[in-house]
Amino acid sequence: MNNFTFYNPTKVHFGVGMITKLAADLTAAGVHKCLLAAGGGSIKHNGVYADTIAMLETAGIARVEAWGIQANPTLEKVRELIALARTEAVDAILAVGGGSVIDSAKAVAAGFYLDDIWEVFSGKARIERALPIFAVLTISATGSEMNGNSVLTNTATQQKWGMGSELVYPRATVIDPAYQSTLPPKQTVNGALDAIAHILEFYFMDPEASVTMGIDDSLQKTIIAMTDRLLRDPLDTSARANLAWSATLALNGISGAGMKGGDWACHQIEHAFSALHPEISHGEGLGVIFPAWIEFMAERDPKIFDLWAKAVWNEDNTASALKAFRAKIKAWGSATSLRELGIKDNELPRLLDLIMIYPRIGGFSRLNREDVEALLMLAF
Amino acid sequence: MNNFTFYNPTKVHFGVGMITKLAADLTAAGVHKCLLAAGGGSIKHNGVYADTIAMLETAGIARVEAWGIQANPTLEKVRELIALARTEAVDAILAVGGGSVIDSAKAVAAGFYLDDIWEVFSGKARIERALPIFAVLTISATGSEMNGNSVLTNTATQQKWGMGSELVYPRATVIDPAYQSTLPPKQTVNGALDAIAHILEFYFMDPEASVTMGIDDSLQKTIIAMTDRLLRDPLDTSARANLAWSATLALNGISGAGMKGGDWACHQIEHAFSALHPEISHGEGLGVIFPAWIEFMAERDPKIFDLWAKAVWNEDNTASALKAFRAKIKAWGSATSLRELGIKDNELPRLLDLIMIYPRIGGFSRLNREDVEALLMLAF
Repeated sequence: MNNFTFYNPTKVHFGVGMITKLAADLTAAGVHKCLLAAGGGSIKHNGVYADTIAMLETAGIARVEAWGIQANPTLEKVRELIALARTEAVDAILAVGGGSVIDSAKAVAAGFYLDDIWEVFSGKARIERALPIFAVLTISATGSEMNGNSVLTNTATQQKWGMGSELVYPRATVIDPAYQSTLPPKQTVNGALDAIAHILEFYFMDPEASVTMGIDDSLQKTIIAMTDRLLRDPLDTSARANLAWSATLALNGISGAGMKGGDWACHQIEHAFSALHPEISHGEGLGVIFPAWIEFMAERDPKIFDLWAKAVWNEDNTASALKAFRAKIKAWGSATSLRELGIKDNELPRLLDLIMIYPRIGGFSRLNREDVEALLMLAF
Repeated sequence: MNNFTFYNPTKVHFGVGMITKLAADLTAAGVHKCLLAAGGGSIKHNGVYADTIAMLETAGIARVEAWGIQANPTLEKVRELIALARTEAVDAILAVGGGSVIDSAKAVAAGFYLDDIWEVFSGKARIERALPIFAVLTISATGSEMNGNSVLTNTATQQKWGMGSELVYPRATVIDPAYQSTLPPKQTVNGALDAIAHILEFYFMDPEASVTMGIDDSLQKTIIAMTDRLLRDPLDTSARANLAWSATLALNGISGAGMKGGDWACHQIEHAFSALHPEISHGEGLGVIFPAWIEFMAERDPKIFDLWAKAVWNEDNTASALKAFRAKIKAWGSATSLRELGIKDNELPRLLDLIMIYPRIGGFSRLNREDVEALLMLAF
């Protein structure tokens, strides 16, 4: 089990009606006026916006609203929000939405104090301070509600890059599973695939880390079982709650303790998919690339993958487990190939170029250009 | 799955040699002089003291040393340390030891600002502030290194009571599994039993909380497997590391998420054992009372206990699982009855009185005097 530092100061209020608890956290942090960052407006139809406004009014906190953050959030939108946050002199960011909104909120909170926030994403600058961030989660997927990561797309350069900092963990997050009861099945599945992918990024890094692997086995099985239940009955509140907390644990430090920071090749590759095709959802893209990555890697060294096959899929070898994994993804109505994602074969060279911009791809096993090309062919 | 708030701001540096990381945390917190709280002196023989002093000297932090904190730590000793902390005007507490030392450190940190710290334990006062606490763990058992709980014994009244506060989470904790390589097998076992008991206090509270139950199944199995390995080879560093992190997770909020705060009857009862007989180790006492509690409760409603039997012990019913659990405890050289703990039958009435001082016993199912008496007879 490898050395690690675990640190996660986000306070999570989990459960139906827990949004009322956020008022005390905002007050304790001395917030007077927040930037309420949101997406396209679905929160106006499912009660989340009304609950949020009621909570802010109870706490006596003013707000300026910033709408229109989209899936695969962009640097351009973040720059617009930073300007607004400065003009309005807010003292906190309140993200009400999914991973895109929360990731954007983190970039705004840090960018508030920087000349150019993209320099943090491109590794040229460090975050020294940030406005306090609070979040009300509306879809369980990225884990952004309880970590210090953010991923943005620079549309101009087609780069979808990430950053992480201890300073952008949300101070407090509300995870109310009832807020997700009206999600379309497709989004529930995308969230589940994203969460599974986060676990898999860590899973194969150290077979000695039994405690983390055991937790990760259990999280994967819970996510699969709860997603199955939600596709049968989207109003299954117990399944919704269990899926929500599993997705948070999938990327809050617990699933990766002792796992050398994870591999992340699949995330790097998927980020290139959606940089090229912003309409591809992150979770669906991961559902295509991860089985291919496992297939590719297991040919080199099947041992650790066979452990996964047994523990998660109750199969004796990786090939059978991959068959079950892909069948599950297909049964969930999600793509199992690049072709199904809408990527054409003549786009593969550009995709390869976008992926190879990263100075290093993969932690489990470093991938060179030929490896990535082979992997893309396998996934095609 | 029940509503809950998860909050755990402790930074954990886990792994061999990680103590050097603590210097930056102490410096960042503005610490100039700490009270180094410790036990009987074993840390002078296993290198922990030397590493701690080297770390403090690197950081340029002065210290005053306070030795002699014993197992089942006492209010009297805590009062002595509070006086010392005031006289020496320290600005932090550095606990170097196991749960007793860290629990005492928490009481000292809060008591520094209070007239009588026992009023917090007896529920008459609340903690409003505390000195910052840092910890170097030397035995994995209580989970105190990553939570806000403390248990003290008031020797005068024979009360062993606990308290919890967000203000006494250690700011940073070092868990170096190598520091535990010279532990006697008995102490490894006591720690494992304590950790298992923490998980069991939550486990039966809500069968709908699949995600938490799955994690708890996995933690129990990891603790059992790693303890077996350590009894065969105390220098098995991988087993030591996995046991250590499992024990931390057993009481840092993860194992109890959505579990209504847990039951805690067994802890209340065991605290009375060791208040009466301070030589009884907490873990060993729990190893006696928990199987009896499960046996007692399963007669009322076997369903949830049968789930545990299958998931953790791969047995079809609770009776068979309990047989396996008790056989394991026996194989580990630990007591399986009150008699083996050294409690005599004529002490049972006094024990019962000490237990019944609690205003409420148990959360899963509230125990009255007759229940506790029946449970003690079952455990005798």
